[in-house]
Amino acid sequence: MGELDVAALLGEIAGIGRDARRGGYSRHVFDEHEARLRAWFTGHAARLGLTVAPDGNGNLWAWWGDPGPGAVLTGSHLDSVPGGGAYDGPLGVASALAAVSRLRAAGEQPPRPLAVVAFAEEEGSRFGRACLGSRLAAGQADPVAVREYRDAAGVTFADAARAAGIDPAGLGPVPWAAQAACFVELHVEQGRALAGLGQPVAIATTILAHGRWTLAFTGQGNHAGTTAMAGRRDPAAAAARTVLAARDLALAADPAPDDNSKMRGGAVHGHAAPGHAVPGRAVAARATVGQAELIPGGANVIASRATLSLDCRAHDDAALAALVAAIAGAAEQSATAEGCTFTMSQASLSPLVVFDAALRDTVAALLPDAPLLATGAGHDAGILAALIPTAMLFVRNPSGVSHAPDEGASDEDCRAGVGALTTVLRHLLAGGRAGPRPAEPR
Amino acid sequence: MGELDVAALLGEIAGIGRDARRGGYSRHVFDEHEARLRAWFTGHAARLGLTVAPDGNGNLWAWWGDPGPGAVLTGSHLDSVPGGGAYDGPLGVASALAAVSRLRAAGEQPPRPLAVVAFAEEEGSRFGRACLGSRLAAGQADPVAVREYRDAAGVTFADAARAAGIDPAGLGPVPWAAQAACFVELHVEQGRALAGLGQPVAIATTILAHGRWTLAFTGQGNHAGTTAMAGRRDPAAAAARTVLAARDLALAADPAPDDNSKMRGGAVHGHAAPGHAVPGRAVAARATVGQAELIPGGANVIASRATLSLDCRAHDDAALAALVAAIAGAAEQSATAEGCTFTMSQASLSPLVVFDAALRDTVAALLPDAPLLATGAGHDAGILAALIPTAMLFVRNPSGVSHAPDEGASDEDCRAGVGALTTVLRHLLAGGRAGPRPAEPR
Repeated sequence: MGELDVAALLGEIAGIGRDARRGGYSRHVFDEHEARLRAWFTGHAARLGLTVAPDGNGNLWAWWGDPGPGAVLTGSHLDSVPGGGAYDGPLGVASALAAVSRLRAAGEQPPRPLAVVAFAEEEGSRFGRACLGSRLAAGQADPVAVREYRDAAGVTFADAARAAGIDPAGLGPVPWAAQAACFVELHVEQGRALAGLGQPVAIATTILAHGRWTLAFTGQGNHAGTTAMAGRRDPAAAAARTVLAARDLALAADPAPDDNSKMRGGAVHGHAAPGHAVPGRAVAARATVGQAELIPGGANVIASRATLSLDCRAHDDAALAALVAAIAGAAEQSATAEGCTFTMSQASLSPLVVFDAALRDTVAALLPDAPLLATGAGHDAGILAALIPTAMLFVRNPSGVSHAPDEGASDEDCRAGVGALTTVLRHLLAGGRAGPRPAEPR
Repeated sequence: MGELDVAALLGEIAGIGRDARRGGYSRHVFDEHEARLRAWFTGHAARLGLTVAPDGNGNLWAWWGDPGPGAVLTGSHLDSVPGGGAYDGPLGVASALAAVSRLRAAGEQPPRPLAVVAFAEEEGSRFGRACLGSRLAAGQADPVAVREYRDAAGVTFADAARAAGIDPAGLGPVPWAAQAACFVELHVEQGRALAGLGQPVAIATTILAHGRWTLAFTGQGNHAGTTAMAGRRDPAAAAARTVLAARDLALAADPAPDDNSKMRGGAVHGHAAPGHAVPGRAVAARATVGQAELIPGGANVIASRATLSLDCRAHDDAALAALVAAIAGAAEQSATAEGCTFTMSQASLSPLVVFDAALRDTVAALLPDAPLLATGAGHDAGILAALIPTAMLFVRNPSGVSHAPDEGASDEDCRAGVGALTTVLRHLLAGGRAGPRPAEPR
């Protein structure tokens, strides 16, 4: 069996799930496009001699060796945001397949099992909660609640899963995840740091604390032509004020000119106490409104209700809570100023992730040229990090753009990523640094 | 044959097209609900002995007497805005049927034909252009362009019409509209004036100049977590600034505390020159953003593009142009400030309508207690007014709310409206004030 080339693998799926309206790709969990990606994954895994076993959550696991405790896990996800790039997710899955093909071709016979995993609904683009497949597998999402999650068309997660051939009664934790030795996820970089550092691959240090909220403003629907401007209670105006307030509050708290711009070694901005220094960690704040809806949504109708999504991130849990509270206060003030009422609900919350220090140092020793980077992007690795030692590799993205069609990585850098992942997996499969997780604050 | 009761007629359709999510009704041209309303209309018209003939534009005409020149036209529309009220449109159609039933029951044998018309797509809620059916019938819309109009799902007007059994090759002017003697439309009031004046019925004087535009802001889509706040080019922020600027510009130019608040007699605010005084006409400005979309629309994605609908209205064409130009300037500035680009397109434009003075005075003489009111709402009558003498009656709406579920009118007031319409139609059918339209600036 020959080695798989990561660029060729990605080329095979380049035509699947293109979004003509938004540009890029729209591949959402359990839709027809993601189903084709699943079939593509399953086919390659089977040809590599791996045993593909879906879990009850829609995640696919391809095993080299017998499924069970002590495994080395690697992989990423296949779904995209609406109009996303080609690399966010599939690069990690394709790189894992390519790395396994190299190890197989080299005749490796590891003493412990390996699984390549494709997690479901990492982006949360269909059911609103990011990393849903890994959260379920890790026991961090309530199956009863998840079954009732609804997509924009009102379809429940249970019905969508059933339509995809997955029995929603099987949702819940999978024992081999918690019992695995470690998880290593490779991902396209979602900032411009590596482009400035002249390196194709980096090692992750932390993931910003982050979460999603829904903000709703209720006013008085009325006729756009007959209702005088004075005395309107227009939730569109309250929402507009809030969009600007959220941006301004995050801007004031986000000193960095760019994400992922910290070099290897030493905490930046002094936010880690002595003895707890986390390389690559710095003050950061982000607030984004990526979805807005005016209801009822007629051109000649003053809306009665406006809803906004709010994505907030910060360098630690307290800073995130403070930012969200400040935005909530501004939203409340905006609503009052416009004669509207305001409610807010939390869709998800992911505390700060500090990746396992010992595993990180092991990976850094194996990849001495790779810088250490913090990231603002959530990942399945951030979920698994609460269970088992977890590490991430990033592959250079020259534009720094992600969640958009401009996201990119050169074939050469993708191959360098596979090389790095292969090196790390070979070491971990041989038993290096795969013991129980050391005590460290999470 | 007995007389039809308008409240009973409306009760028959009270269950059709309810919108559980928005409240109120969503009845859009050529959808299943509007089709049921068409069937309801056709059935009652046929039982009244009228001859129902659809034109090529999706409008329904129910004739008493032979179709042809010199007819008295009355009616309104059956479609609604998304989540609209029960009266906007259907009240005028039901009142016309009830009025005809009274005239028939009284044994009237008018010397000229009458047609009750139900115009299609008055709200423009499906294909974006208000009064589309009446514009087509009046020769004010290009059939070639209209066939290619698309709804939110991408369905063309031509395909939607075909699916509703209408051959889109037949789109275009209908001769009997231009050759009719006059048109009288009864409509629920869309303001609170009558509630304050103690009268159930009013007579229209003018319709504000109005139009619809689409504003689009283009920035740089990116990842919500990894993209620093500084340097973002977020079209959501540019759009939010514009929502507030449009409101503030219109507010500054709209001195009236409420619409439709002018009493009978005398121009208000001195905007009509001596000799051209238009009762009930005053300075007014309105700007409404009722639709907003962020594209691609992911919670964890900075949008690459934002679109807004803009509905603007003013007391004359020049004031409207000035308001729209000021908002366009503010939008351009907002885009520049956020590192985005801005484009704007006009979806429709309806000049100021001054209803036929002689017909208005005739109606006022027949209904001596009815106040004269200007309105900010567009109507099919505003389209027909360019062709033939046209008048409107308004029925009291205690809440003043329209284009929303709270819109309302008492059964008693609806019956008073039918009484007024019957009086007017009887006079016009007998030949009173139905000659050619007098010269008057439009």
